[in-house]
Amino acid sequence: MKDEVKVALLGCGTVGTQVARLLGEQAEDFAARSGARLRLIGIAVRDASAPRDPAIDPALLTEDADSIIDQADIVIELIGGIEPARTYILRAFQAGASVVTGNKALLAEHGPELYEAAAEANVDLYYEAAVAGAIPVVYGLRESLAGDRITQILGIVNGTTNYILDEMTVAGLSFDEALKQAQELGFAEADPTADVDGLDAAAKCAILASLAFHTRVELSDVEVTGIREITAADIASATAAGYVIKLLANAKRHEDGIEVSVAPTLVPADHPLATVHGSFNAVVIEAEAADRLMFYGRGAGGAPTASAVLSDVVAAASHKVLGGNAPRELIYGDVPILPASKTRARHQLELVVVDQIGVLTEVTGVFARHGVSISAVAQSYGRGKKSDTCHLTVTTHEAQQNELDATLADLRESSFVTDIVRVIRVEEN
Amino acid sequence: MKDEVKVALLGCGTVGTQVARLLGEQAEDFAARSGARLRLIGIAVRDASAPRDPAIDPALLTEDADSIIDQADIVIELIGGIEPARTYILRAFQAGASVVTGNKALLAEHGPELYEAAAEANVDLYYEAAVAGAIPVVYGLRESLAGDRITQILGIVNGTTNYILDEMTVAGLSFDEALKQAQELGFAEADPTADVDGLDAAAKCAILASLAFHTRVELSDVEVTGIREITAADIASATAAGYVIKLLANAKRHEDGIEVSVAPTLVPADHPLATVHGSFNAVVIEAEAADRLMFYGRGAGGAPTASAVLSDVVAAASHKVLGGNAPRELIYGDVPILPASKTRARHQLELVVVDQIGVLTEVTGVFARHGVSISAVAQSYGRGKKSDTCHLTVTTHEAQQNELDATLADLRESSFVTDIVRVIRVEEN
Repeated sequence: MKDEVKVALLGCGTVGTQVARLLGEQAEDFAARSGARLRLIGIAVRDASAPRDPAIDPALLTEDADSIIDQADIVIELIGGIEPARTYILRAFQAGASVVTGNKALLAEHGPELYEAAAEANVDLYYEAAVAGAIPVVYGLRESLAGDRITQILGIVNGTTNYILDEMTVAGLSFDEALKQAQELGFAEADPTADVDGLDAAAKCAILASLAFHTRVELSDVEVTGIREITAADIASATAAGYVIKLLANAKRHEDGIEVSVAPTLVPADHPLATVHGSFNAVVIEAEAADRLMFYGRGAGGAPTASAVLSDVVAAASHKVLGGNAPRELIYGDVPILPASKTRARHQLELVVVDQIGVLTEVTGVFARHGVSISAVAQSYGRGKKSDTCHLTVTTHEAQQNELDATLADLRESSFVTDIVRVIRVEEN
Repeated sequence: MKDEVKVALLGCGTVGTQVARLLGEQAEDFAARSGARLRLIGIAVRDASAPRDPAIDPALLTEDADSIIDQADIVIELIGGIEPARTYILRAFQAGASVVTGNKALLAEHGPELYEAAAEANVDLYYEAAVAGAIPVVYGLRESLAGDRITQILGIVNGTTNYILDEMTVAGLSFDEALKQAQELGFAEADPTADVDGLDAAAKCAILASLAFHTRVELSDVEVTGIREITAADIASATAAGYVIKLLANAKRHEDGIEVSVAPTLVPADHPLATVHGSFNAVVIEAEAADRLMFYGRGAGGAPTASAVLSDVVAAASHKVLGGNAPRELIYGDVPILPASKTRARHQLELVVVDQIGVLTEVTGVFARHGVSISAVAQSYGRGKKSDTCHLTVTTHEAQQNELDATLADLRESSFVTDIVRVIRVEEN
């Protein structure tokens, strides 16, 4: 039995620094939980002479990642991005080390290659920190719900966009104001594209869907809409109707396949996801036997993400000491991924229509013609608009995307419809 | 490598029936996840001739539990209570079987004995279903947060009392009316003592505290107050002040020890626990690195509890097939359990006092004399009470229980105080 587990850390940013600090500070606890001492043998960085947090022992820093990978029992990869992270992880597996990573982009693009390499080398690949930071949702799906059948995952998995939407809702800011504030507070990057356009959430959605449905889902399978187009008027309209707009990652099992998407969505105000404020994340899992579960917590930040990394390290370490393995990737499902045209959802549409008798019949007739069933219609008069038009808010039942698209095309052609202000997904309670 | 894992089921009530059904219906999934087929070799019941759900194969029923325990790789214990459950579980360990149980009473009273017997036999003891049904909180504490240090657990872990308090709050029912309704709907037993007096929650609190603080906490260590004394007036007063009353299990780490209690508690309306409605359960975990996490879901019911049982079965089965073990009980902490007198909390008190000049100074002076710091005082006039008295609502900062008790004793003696209407814990946001 090993009396020491050698840990190599790749990357020393916000999360890496916290990981190194906690490995030192809580060494006794980790030893008790793993069955052996965890010894940090080195920290690979690009520039070993750059200034660092005082928690980092300079003697551990190296610019030669390979040298510490080859000696390690466990490699923690916190560099991010595709290369050189991918090459380092494959090298670690070849050297017989287990890997703990928080790299969602790499997993969403090269997951299958990594899982296979880990299985071949008979070592562990853990990645709790890749989705929703400190929230143990990977654990939940990989291990805890292994005895159930999941029907849907619905999650707020990007703190930056949740912060922006929350500020727009609670403080009445515009998108640009809220984004600027998020950048000033460090919740958003100088280049916010990955967050704001939904790509970060989409990578996490792909990972969650793969886990939930035991099927390979890649980033390119996810239909993505970001939040750049969300206006203060959209927020006001949602609030007035008893909804909150959230950027939701959605992975849902239908009879004929699964749909995976990221899109701004109307969530009823008493839905558990509606009260997730600020930069918190939450993931709702609907399962056949367990019914509805929700996991809530910090989706980012140095210490919370380090907590997720270290729980994976403890699991991997105890396998090094006592034997056993992380659950293997279970790709036994052959459920197809539905093309966007075949996905189904409820939507809310706001139309500007000519204010005259017969228009409502005309408009609802367009929906009926394409098989889109309507659950509610509300009529209102636009503020400061010319008085010969009015606004119709139409909420549909679940309808297939191609039927909705055909409806929208006809509405655009219709002489009664002067504008389509908004088309947004609606989630039921 | 095994190609079959033999499962014995003890007990065939609501949960047992669902476990048997799901083992049959989802056999393919379980086989893929466990690495071998799970074969149900028998179901031990008291009366094999009693009428059963059609999902139960009568050929599997037996009144001789020992005969199936001795052949099993995994024993699922769903009988409940102390005996014969305890004897059966110990027999299973001796026969080399792993055990999955949902028996919180047994774990809270005989946990150490069972953990030791499992470790000695080198088999697994899993008990996700014992706390908060389908919610993977045992998993979260045993495995996922193994790399963090937990500071507090705060949970709604009894669905019956949450249903009753929720109906009192939302529908304005009295305690007796809400209890009767819960009984009619099957959410409460004919004898509701274990739920209503907080004993069920206390057993779960002891299990959670043991896991969180790596210290042995027994049922008798938990200070328990139930919800029988909660009146419609208490609920109305809480609502008016922006609070909700919840029966909370609380396990908190202080410098000098841990406190474990179950008590009706005022929770701010925007606290994540405040929106847990009906018979749902939720557990908030505060950890040093992870910050605040919340797990939410069904705390009871046949299928949700069966889901928790089966995820444990899959974990235990994959260890039988591939090797490895459930995490061992980690009792390496020697944190003392604080006596009730040394626990610390905020409280809200409602006093009826003589309505004359100088009373406020007198009353607040009593608190000051005992070192109890006040955060807020509100004065109001009782409805329909005689007009020479008024009501004072005093909210304290965190104070030690013996100081609060001394304050209350003095207030009772005071000629200015005619009644103490309410003393209730307050949880901060």
